[in-house]
Amino acid sequence: VELISSTNNRRVVEAAKLHRSRERRDTGRTLLEGPHNVAEALAGGAEVQALFTLDAGSEVAQDAALAGVDVFEVAPVVLAKVAATEHPRGPVAVLAVPPSPPLARRDTVVLVDVADPGNVGTVIRSAAAFGFQVALVGSAADPWAPKVLRAAAGGHFRVPVCVLAGPDDLVRAGLRMTALVPSPEANPGALNRRWPTALLVGSEAHGLPAVLVGACDSVVTLPMPGGVESLNVAVAASIAMYERLRLTS
Amino acid sequence: VELISSTNNRRVVEAAKLHRSRERRDTGRTLLEGPHNVAEALAGGAEVQALFTLDAGSEVAQDAALAGVDVFEVAPVVLAKVAATEHPRGPVAVLAVPPSPPLARRDTVVLVDVADPGNVGTVIRSAAAFGFQVALVGSAADPWAPKVLRAAAGGHFRVPVCVLAGPDDLVRAGLRMTALVPSPEANPGALNRRWPTALLVGSEAHGLPAVLVGACDSVVTLPMPGGVESLNVAVAASIAMYERLRLTS
Repeated sequence: VELISSTNNRRVVEAAKLHRSRERRDTGRTLLEGPHNVAEALAGGAEVQALFTLDAGSEVAQDAALAGVDVFEVAPVVLAKVAATEHPRGPVAVLAVPPSPPLARRDTVVLVDVADPGNVGTVIRSAAAFGFQVALVGSAADPWAPKVLRAAAGGHFRVPVCVLAGPDDLVRAGLRMTALVPSPEANPGALNRRWPTALLVGSEAHGLPAVLVGACDSVVTLPMPGGVESLNVAVAASIAMYERLRLTS
Repeated sequence: VELISSTNNRRVVEAAKLHRSRERRDTGRTLLEGPHNVAEALAGGAEVQALFTLDAGSEVAQDAALAGVDVFEVAPVVLAKVAATEHPRGPVAVLAVPPSPPLARRDTVVLVDVADPGNVGTVIRSAAAFGFQVALVGSAADPWAPKVLRAAAGGHFRVPVCVLAGPDDLVRAGLRMTALVPSPEANPGALNRRWPTALLVGSEAHGLPAVLVGACDSVVTLPMPGGVESLNVAVAASIAMYERLRLTS
């Protein structure tokens, strides 16, 4: 364990640059914050390259050191520089972004153009709870951005998170496609299919593109007796996963 | 319709002060942004006191003018001053916060110490979709804060949002209390009760206080085969509402 008190330390400066998406893309690294998330990353075998902590004696810091991670005990001002939250308690880890895994032939939630990092992270968290693979298509948020990792609460290290070139990848993987759309006619029972299914949800602003809905094998609408046009996209995707699991297990 | 080009205009300065929670509390007013949300507020009979818009000819601005609202067509720099979002398209409305309505004896989702405005708003949005009353207890976020209104997408104007002095109010209103908690033993079927039910969910960090869980008539856990300890609180509350509706309708 090395002590760092200066915000000008090379490792600190390099880590702090990862707040910028361009730097994350260029280096293939990202930042992960909080003891629970870091513990999940270590348990999931993720490549943690450095850990900045206020307390090198904490359980997560000791686990990281045992796993061969470079652990740095830092002053609060240093932690504040690498953390994204306002009053950070740490630790903050530098994580190597893994390559996108191949799509497996199993139930998958597919985020099409979902732009809000909180929504993407929340869906990954729910997918981990319900055992779904996650895929992202189009202009969806970078799933390894720090805000997404925070909202996912460790979900990235429990289920595959795949970035696709396009929806054709789903067909090639042998998945049937189901579009989740708001409509006056509810039919949640259509989630009861025996085939491995890709459950597509669209962007906050525009929903799913009509062409893509037309290409799906089935179209599902959740019942909303209150007459509201839509749920939050992360809520809708989570309820659909829950309902499919209930109907098929 | 009055034109405003200066950010020093009295109505603009007064509205911009409402970004501060203290000013909202002192004046009983808040800010509401976006054409959908403002249209929902007008349709729901909310007291809209002023509307700042880039385009007084837009549908929502004309509806507001017809409803007797003071409509101001403003320069982009003025809109930016009253808006909370980064690239505002408007409109922004000044809204009188209504008094907390009395609790009705009907199915209710209860947020206990839920602090994140996005989570509170998302639950209000789901409650509107599923026809649940909303109640807030303890240190929950102010339900009329602009961030909550944004995430709720008009839900405030479709279902009652009640701020309670404490959980005793639920018992006094004749509601049975059900605690939603993570646990290894799933029992979603326990949501199938004929009595009007208050469905309690706890804070992001600490869940429900044990004393409050002990005071509930029943305790419910959603199935999470992935073995993750918890879902996002807004997702969990929404799935529980969905499941109760499914079981009882």
